[in-house]
Formats: sequence, C-alpha cells, structure tokens
Amino acid sequence: MTDRRSDPLSPTRRNLLRASAALAGAAAATPRAAGADTGDNLPPNVPAWMKTQGAPVLSPPYGEPSPFEKTVVRRQRTRTQTQTAASSQTPLQDLHGIITPSGLHFERHHAGVPAIDPAQHRLMLHGMVERPLIFSMDDLARFPSVSRVHFLECSGNGSWAGLGTEATVQQTHGLISCSEWTGVLLSTVLGEAGVKPGAAWVLAEGADASAMSRSIPIGNALDDAILAYAQNGERLRPEQGYPLRLFLPGLEGNMSVKWLRRLKVGDQPFETREETSKYTDLMPDGTARQFTFVMEARSVITFPSGGQRLADRGFVEISGLAWSGRGRITRVDVSTDGGASWRDAVLQAPVMSKCLTRFRCPWTWTGEVARLQSRATDQTGYVQQSKAELVDARGLNSGYHLNAIHEWRLAPDGAVTNEV
Amino acid sequence: MTDRRSDPLSPTRRNLLRASAALAGAAAATPRAAGADTGDNLPPNVPAWMKTQGAPVLSPPYGEPSPFEKTVVRRQRTRTQTQTAASSQTPLQDLHGIITPSGLHFERHHAGVPAIDPAQHRLMLHGMVERPLIFSMDDLARFPSVSRVHFLECSGNGSWAGLGTEATVQQTHGLISCSEWTGVLLSTVLGEAGVKPGAAWVLAEGADASAMSRSIPIGNALDDAILAYAQNGERLRPEQGYPLRLFLPGLEGNMSVKWLRRLKVGDQPFETREETSKYTDLMPDGTARQFTFVMEARSVITFPSGGQRLADRGFVEISGLAWSGRGRITRVDVSTDGGASWRDAVLQAPVMSKCLTRFRCPWTWTGEVARLQSRATDQTGYVQQSKAELVDARGLNSGYHLNAIHEWRLAPDGAVTNEV
Repeated sequence: MTDRRSDPLSPTRRNLLRASAALAGAAAATPRAAGADTGDNLPPNVPAWMKTQGAPVLSPPYGEPSPFEKTVVRRQRTRTQTQTAASSQTPLQDLHGIITPSGLHFERHHAGVPAIDPAQHRLMLHGMVERPLIFSMDDLARFPSVSRVHFLECSGNGSWAGLGTEATVQQTHGLISCSEWTGVLLSTVLGEAGVKPGAAWVLAEGADASAMSRSIPIGNALDDAILAYAQNGERLRPEQGYPLRLFLPGLEGNMSVKWLRRLKVGDQPFETREETSKYTDLMPDGTARQFTFVMEARSVITFPSGGQRLADRGFVEISGLAWSGRGRITRVDVSTDGGASWRDAVLQAPVMSKCLTRFRCPWTWTGEVARLQSRATDQTGYVQQSKAELVDARGLNSGYHLNAIHEWRLAPDGAVTNEV
Repeated sequence: MTDRRSDPLSPTRRNLLRASAALAGAAAATPRAAGADTGDNLPPNVPAWMKTQGAPVLSPPYGEPSPFEKTVVRRQRTRTQTQTAASSQTPLQDLHGIITPSGLHFERHHAGVPAIDPAQHRLMLHGMVERPLIFSMDDLARFPSVSRVHFLECSGNGSWAGLGTEATVQQTHGLISCSEWTGVLLSTVLGEAGVKPGAAWVLAEGADASAMSRSIPIGNALDDAILAYAQNGERLRPEQGYPLRLFLPGLEGNMSVKWLRRLKVGDQPFETREETSKYTDLMPDGTARQFTFVMEARSVITFPSGGQRLADRGFVEISGLAWSGRGRITRVDVSTDGGASWRDAVLQAPVMSKCLTRFRCPWTWTGEVARLQSRATDQTGYVQQSKAELVDARGLNSGYHLNAIHEWRLAPDGAVTNEV
C-alpha cells in the first residue's frame, strides 16, 4: 500500500529528516554530556543490572510480560450485576502494530468462561445435511487448515451516548482485538456432511452455561467462516472459546460463537434469544433492525489518545488502527483540526482483509489546541461517517454498531481528552 | 502466492472433496449415532460445563493458556553448567500459523535475563557520528515507528552431529520464532546523529552481565535494522530484551542484541569475544569463517514430526515452516519418499520477507514407510540443500548455520521418528 501513498506523507528520507529536525529542538535528541544525566545506572556508567547474572533460563517455561508493564491489562466493563455476564476491554493505548497479545484480547461472556476438557469436547453437525456428524477435536485437526489474521469486534464496541472527557481509547474502542486464527474452513466440514438443497441458515451453539446461540447465513458459512482451534500460534485461550470457536471474519463478534458444540443447518433463521431480545438495533420509529451482521469500516487514533499527555511540542507520530468487515482498508485520513482539513496517513503493509491496519501520520505540534480525528475508507468505497450522520440515520436507541469518526482533544499543556 | 500454485495441490473444491473422501474412510468423519459416543458430556447430552456458570470475567486481567495446554512450553537446552548461559526452544510441533506466542519465543542468554527499569534505561550512540546522543525510552518512542513480522533464528539452531531418533522438532529446530516487531528504524536514529564519512561498522552492546556485543555492518544498520521496543503488540518480554533490543531481520539471532544500551559507529569491526571465540564457523582446513551473518533458506515439517503419531491412514495435511534471511520464500517442495520425488506445497498468504511462511501439502497415507522431507526456495533462487552437500562444503567442526533438508521417518504403525 505504501507505494501509492501521496509523497508528502510517505516515510521518505526527506520526511524523516524533517521529523528529526523537529525532534532536534526537543529533549528527545538533544546531545547530553556523558554522565550529566541523573543516576549511576546511565551511560557511560555500568548499570546495576550488568553487575550480576540475570534470571536463569529455566524459569519461566511459559513467559510473561515484564513486571514494569503490570498496568497493561484488560479493563473490566461493569454493565451488569454479575461477573459472568460481562466484558473486558483491550488496552489499545498501550499496544503497537496490529497483533493483540492473546492475554489482552477483549472478552464478552454471557455465562462466564467454561473449563472444557478438549478430550471430551465434541462438535455435532446436523439438520439439513446428508450425513449428520459428530467431531472430536482430533477429528477436526485432521482436516485441511488455514491461518488468517483477522480482527474481532463486539457489536457493542463504543457508546452512542458518549463517555466522559476522561475516557481512554480502551474504554471507547477496547472491544476490538486482532489475532492470527487457525482452523478448518467451515465450508470444508459442511462439504463433508453434504448440505441439502434449500439450506439457508446455520445455527451455532456454544458449550457455555448460556448455550450462546446465533443464526449464520449459509453464504457466510460457506465463504470464509473458520472452525478455529488456534490463536496467535497456540491453541485458543479459554476466554476465546477453548478448545473450539466459530470465527466469522468481519461480522459482529457474538456470532463467532465460542466453545462451539453444535451446528444445525436449516432453511430459516432460528430466532434465538441473542438475535431477538439482544443484538438488534432499535430504530427511532420503534422497529428493530435484525441480523445486522457486518462491522462497517471504522478507525481510531490510539496515539495520542484520551488520558495520554504529550511531553513536548515538535514532532508527533499520530498512530492508530483502521478496519472494515467488508474487506481491506484502502485509505485513512487524519485531521488535527476537527475535520476541517485532512491528510492521507501511511498504512503499514501488508494490509489484509478484515484485519486491523495500523496507520501513521507524521505531524508537528506547535502547541495549539488540536482536535484529532481519523477517517477510514474500505475497498468498497465506504467512508467512515460522523456521529451526527449516524444518529440522523439510526437514532440513539441502539447500543450496537457505532462506527463514527472519533475525536480526541489535545490541550496546550499536552493533555489529551475524549471529545464527548 | 496461492494463485500461482500448481493446480494438483491448490485447495480447490475438487481437492478438498478428494481430501474429504480420504477422511470419509477414517474415524475422523464417520457418522456416529447420537449418544453412541462415550461419556455423559457428549452431544446430544448437555455437558457438565454447561450446567454451571463459568469463571467470571474479572480474572485474569492478563490471560493465560488453558490448563489443558500446560505441556506446550519452552524446552531448556542444557549445554553448559550454568543456568544463565543457556537457551530454550520453541515447541514448533504444537504451534499453528506463523506467529509464535511471546511466552514461547526461544531464548539464548549469555548471562541470564536482567531486570531493567525502563525509566532508567538509556541507549548511548557515539563513535563516528556528528552528534553523540543518549536516548531514554521516552525519547525513542517519539521517533517514527515501523511494525514488521520477522523470524528470529539462532545461528546454532540444529545439530551438525545429528540427534537421536527420539528427537522432536522442538529439539531439532526450536531455536527459531516469529513475531510482529515494532520500533524505530536504526537508520532514523543514525540519521539523527549524523554518520561520519568512512563509517563501516556499528558496535551493539547489551546491558546484561555479559555485555553481549556484536559488530554490525553499516549497510545492515542503514537498511532494515530496527530498535525494537514491542513484540506481538505489547512491550518486549524480559527474555527478548526489555525494554529495548536491536533487531536485524534475516541475520543470525545473537546480532539482534538484547537489552541494547550502546551503539558505537566505527570504520572496522570491533572483534568482540562473540565474533572471535564464538559465532565463527570452523572449516575442515582449520580456518574459520567469520561474520557469517545471513540465515540462509531453510524449512522443516512440523506435522507430522518426531515424537508424533498418526492416528490413522488416509488424509494427512503435511504442514511446516519455511524461511530465508535473504527475503521471501517463493516455493516449498515436499517429498514423502526421501527426496526421490517432490510435490509443490501451498504457501499461506501473505508471504512476507524474512518471515516464517507456513506451508501445507495434502497427502494420502496408505500405511507404508514414508520419509518426509521439505525443501525451501527463496526469492534469490537459493534452494535448500542436503546435509551431505553442506558437510562436503563445510565439514563438521562448526555448530552454526545448519540449514539442511530435514527428514522424518513415518513407520507403518504411525510413529514418527527423527532421521539421524
């Protein structure tokens, strides 16, 4: 993608030098006389940690983050009185690139996280198929597999009513994460069973205590749906459906049913609790939009973002994430003046379909108040809209499918706040 | 890449059906009468874990793998009498896709893992530069950043003498891992300092108790070298150099100096301990090859691999990893008869430069003895060679840069062993 970016924003040598020049006036790159810094641990002194042997290799066989990163954790979102029907949010403000560490993937559970023995777990496939089948995990592992990097976003990611000025991007957008998913294409398994003529929907049911259930259009099931058993190289985390989940690229997260135990093929939607009482969009006229599956194009700036503070004026690399449930992101525009003017951001390659895309936009902050926005465009030509436009069309009755342009306010003292 | 694969091996509907047909004769996809399986937890019964609420969302804020996956861990490689100068290997046999979970990234330390406070850590850049500089972590975070997915491989990955028949792929090839790395291009920071005419090498020194040091050619430093502070989305793990490491895509792992504290630009190599007494290749004539940086193209089959056992005859998806320090993998051939004949494997897209590439090759096992091999080709046209060819050229005195074709032996009972 980088090749077709407009020259003024491409990371050419000329731009890097300009960025460096901006930095040169700040503390960042000011030469310091050796030893003039504070502390005995700074160059050219030998720091304390070079004077003793470090921790041995034996521990830990499965590693963890540095103790200095202990604040980088998921944040629980307390919407209900129970801890089992709840969610937690990914700390997007602390993350880099596009991969979400599996330990920080957002969660949304309807009855907590079941502890499932994979040796006992089974997937039943029945309904309008020639051959009803039951698969063990070993059975599924024998099928041809695929690995694809995709985002997963909860349809309830974001607040239509708006959050306070103190909100961080973890609070405003933290119900999205991105992983490399590996598993069997659902189309492969459906082909094995033989879908009968007239089949139009597939019921997916989870093995949690809520028996979380959704109806999936057969077109999506036969397209790129995955019976996923691995995430970021290893087997699924318990919170992500261990040992098996459905994964529907680009569609609202709850359809990617975790702890998948049953698929039933039918000729009409199954009208489960989660597609009648929940996960519908109540419109101003009192009707409800049902089966609003696709997560439309969206983006957000993660640096600088709410709760962060710029240390200094000068060069700032504005950075964020963009995604679309309809395919690839083709363009992200960034504004520092509340949408009055826009600049074309650089997209980190490779740009993948239905995947987070990291964008970056070099900027020189001269200390004025700034209103930072990003606007995504996807391969269908869809352009992310303002919240006012979305509210005009859909009202404020629904808690789902908010994908509006988001604004952070940068104050002269460097503080960044959420624009309500 | 998939588009240009030859038709017989591409995952077309025709091939999937052929694969399914193979499976249909095996236990994998045999229809089972509902309830005929063992255990009350199997469909259509409601399993025990659906009858109670699961674990609440609050715990854990930073997630971990399922307790059922506790055997998927790094394996310590005990070559020395100390636990601080040692290594651990990635369990490639248990992994999927190309991303290595950060908790399972291989390790190689010379004096253990230092515990470094990022607020106190500094990087000093001096020598043949116009402006000697000292950077804090906050300083480095202000520079333009890049995120790239690359493998990292220890030059000592593999045994020239050969391991026993019981060896797993974790033992034979486990000193390689792959992550999304984020940081500042070293060229950006060198540009800031101003490299003086005649500069040809850069010394990189780590802040561990061994002051691990290597000389880097200025060409590599100005090409794609990264001052990396993040890995797979989050800040580096302690074992990977927290808070800062040098990352040199495609070059032998020890040059990507962890806990990076100093870069000194010079006009000749610094001849450190780790490039004179170690990390040189002793040839049959008694001379040593020095500065053998690039990790040449290599591949290995991870399934089926040593210690695994095929449950049944019929369809088998042979799967593995290929990589090259010189760029992209363009082709992987798979043999099931010890190299007498070869078939073109499918490469998982996107295929990235200096990055692990997952390959897959559908195969029907009829129960005979099989000798499984893979052979990688990279964008330079280099083709992975046999061990005999490598030994002819380089002898058996060196422990480094083994990249030979590897063979697993599949016995009629399904057992897979290492071919010595």
